[in-house]
Amino acid sequence: MTPFKLTDELLAHIGELIKQHKNSELVAMMQEIHYADVAEIVNELSVEDATYLIKLLDSDKTSDVLTELDEDVREDVLNNLSSKEIAEELEELDTDDAADIVAELPDEIVQQVISEIEDREHARDIVDLLRYDENSAGGLMAKELVKVNENWNVLTCVKEMRAQAENVTRVHSIYVVDDDDMLKGRLSLKDLLTTSTTTPIKDVFIHRVDSVNVNEKPEEVAKIMSKYDLEAIPVVDEIGRLVGRITIDDIVDVIREEADKDYQMAAGISQSVEADDSIWELTRARLPWLFLGLLGGVGAAAIMGGFEEMISKHAILFFFTPLIAAMAGNVGVQSSAIIVQGLANDDLKGSISNRLIKEMLLAMLNGLILASVLLLFTWFWKGTLPTAFAISISLVVVIVVAGIIGTFTPLFLHKRGIDPAIATGPFITTSNDIFGILIYFWIAKIILGI
Amino acid sequence: MTPFKLTDELLAHIGELIKQHKNSELVAMMQEIHYADVAEIVNELSVEDATYLIKLLDSDKTSDVLTELDEDVREDVLNNLSSKEIAEELEELDTDDAADIVAELPDEIVQQVISEIEDREHARDIVDLLRYDENSAGGLMAKELVKVNENWNVLTCVKEMRAQAENVTRVHSIYVVDDDDMLKGRLSLKDLLTTSTTTPIKDVFIHRVDSVNVNEKPEEVAKIMSKYDLEAIPVVDEIGRLVGRITIDDIVDVIREEADKDYQMAAGISQSVEADDSIWELTRARLPWLFLGLLGGVGAAAIMGGFEEMISKHAILFFFTPLIAAMAGNVGVQSSAIIVQGLANDDLKGSISNRLIKEMLLAMLNGLILASVLLLFTWFWKGTLPTAFAISISLVVVIVVAGIIGTFTPLFLHKRGIDPAIATGPFITTSNDIFGILIYFWIAKIILGI
Repeated sequence: MTPFKLTDELLAHIGELIKQHKNSELVAMMQEIHYADVAEIVNELSVEDATYLIKLLDSDKTSDVLTELDEDVREDVLNNLSSKEIAEELEELDTDDAADIVAELPDEIVQQVISEIEDREHARDIVDLLRYDENSAGGLMAKELVKVNENWNVLTCVKEMRAQAENVTRVHSIYVVDDDDMLKGRLSLKDLLTTSTTTPIKDVFIHRVDSVNVNEKPEEVAKIMSKYDLEAIPVVDEIGRLVGRITIDDIVDVIREEADKDYQMAAGISQSVEADDSIWELTRARLPWLFLGLLGGVGAAAIMGGFEEMISKHAILFFFTPLIAAMAGNVGVQSSAIIVQGLANDDLKGSISNRLIKEMLLAMLNGLILASVLLLFTWFWKGTLPTAFAISISLVVVIVVAGIIGTFTPLFLHKRGIDPAIATGPFITTSNDIFGILIYFWIAKIILGI
Repeated sequence: MTPFKLTDELLAHIGELIKQHKNSELVAMMQEIHYADVAEIVNELSVEDATYLIKLLDSDKTSDVLTELDEDVREDVLNNLSSKEIAEELEELDTDDAADIVAELPDEIVQQVISEIEDREHARDIVDLLRYDENSAGGLMAKELVKVNENWNVLTCVKEMRAQAENVTRVHSIYVVDDDDMLKGRLSLKDLLTTSTTTPIKDVFIHRVDSVNVNEKPEEVAKIMSKYDLEAIPVVDEIGRLVGRITIDDIVDVIREEADKDYQMAAGISQSVEADDSIWELTRARLPWLFLGLLGGVGAAAIMGGFEEMISKHAILFFFTPLIAAMAGNVGVQSSAIIVQGLANDDLKGSISNRLIKEMLLAMLNGLILASVLLLFTWFWKGTLPTAFAISISLVVVIVVAGIIGTFTPLFLHKRGIDPAIATGPFITTSNDIFGILIYFWIAKIILGI
């Protein structure tokens, strides 16, 4: 497979074909391109050209293209389509993707669009899905699944399955329910391929089946599916009725988004932004954190102002404040990142106090090594051993305190039900800057006896 | 489903059962627990208890447990098993998981273990997989797949498939090859369920099939599979022969590991460590970055030493060095993180110079807003307008330069084929600290005319 590459030439060529209304050529060309790649192309076109292309192509292709478009482009394109045209696109989509699109439509046209959907069962399923919180298993699941009744025999079952499979893009498991639609177990496709066709369902199905509740958080669903290597998981309601299923491709997106979010938080970027967003959007995502950093810096300056009397005799102390701040910040980020990751991957065992003791020992070890190097440097540079000692000893204390703050803060936030990831990045750096500089001057003052 | 929770009570109970050799009770208990959860239990047991439990249970369960264990625990347990026992475990595993375990075994026993595997084809497949670089599609793939010849008729095909499916845990697609084993296309399971059984293969298979080369990087495979929403992808060799397939569960692990790695790099942690690793391992992962920070701090101190003559008249300039360093660091991390993420997700378009201009404008906007706030603060605090102006104007310049460095560095590294993620975190913070403080004092010196 030669991977698709979106080039400027290709875009110019497509623009030209659209301008000249070379419809058959366009259709033939797009036929050869995967919908995810067509979406990349459409993202780069003007709204007019994008709409032209979407209207030109068959809805079995364009519906998939729509789901892959950037949100703002999709909004623009849908604005140019009639309710009937949108309904045709939804008709082609799985219920979960269709519901996601409907949820983005302006309220005033939702009802119109839904009423234009010809397959009324599909429309009902979409409306059902709109009820669920976007940030829950219900918001992720699709209604498309293959289920059989435990009381059927294999013959009925195979016939029913064939009919159901028509509507399901990917058959992962065949779920087994009772007369009340309660999830009882599953039939594997492998069993289907390898078992004799005369066996009754009750005798062959697997009674153990993992499932999640509709209200489960997407991150939890992701954890369960990746821990147990599942490719699809059935979703049950509060009383155990089978209401949908979540497939691994949606979970891959959840994992990616979670990772991006944590990474951006660590880098001091609030909200999800991309490099290609507008300067205004990027400023809104970045400025609050910088402002926090500014406050921290002002705080540090105020603290140093309080120790101004030391400047005439020990100017060198002031030269090392960026070093102290940087080390406090770095240690804090390191220890909080390890905790945040441990919490995210569910592999933190043992008590908080054990963890703090371990971090303290670790910070002390690192601190002593670094402080020895610094001691030698300052001693050679300025030649006054007491100052060199004062700076180095403070560094050890600052590193230990920074490590403890970095470990404790995310654990504390997690206990209180707050996303610990906010404790990484600028938040921890800023508070550690201030604490660090304060501790540094205190200890230096005591040691130098000023 | 009530999720499994590993409690201290449960562990103590299991430890007690092992001590008293209550084998049937243990077997019955483990029967009810998923292998991924059994692995969590085994991770916490002593080596002796872990070995006891592994030897007690059936290898169809323990083989899966072994793949899920922490690497060091697995090594310890395997050390206590005979070559024959290890071979029995490998027998139960898919070739990719088996090859991963064999790759971890001490060289001197590999041959012995392989020769004990009864299924010689399975053994051959495992040995084949050992040839591939761990960090490639070949290193990820399994040999288990279902393939049919395009020249067969459906009857032969279904019979062959049934036989092959016995060895394949999850059937995703049926791959179609020619007489030379060249990948020609695929048959979907849905087609299988819904097409009449009398159709010849040549007429029904889908000629377009995504595939990857054995030498493709895992990150690229992950990108392709998640972009095209694939649950399995066939792997072909240099001349197009079908040699294996990669399933989405392995890709989920790749995505998680990539995300963890980038996150740890941004946080200044080299190598993959976990909160539960030893203090020594954690120190090795953290100390190099802290040392880098120390060098940066020493550099900053040396720069400030060079401007020492300013300290008597403009002590306040020295109070703001942590602020300048923090802002330079934060802006640098923000802009590099956005670029690194854009590169990882393949959604950076346009030229480097455009991107630098955009970042410059963005940094200028942020810088002006922040500098105005700082100007008011310093003016009120110390009352000297020229100094306040000098500090604020420097801040704007520092932020712009930091933004440009943060944008340029990852783009440059990426162009040179180096992982741009190393540009985030301590590396960018440290260099920006030094540049920031240097620029700050230069500009202040010029403005204040000293």
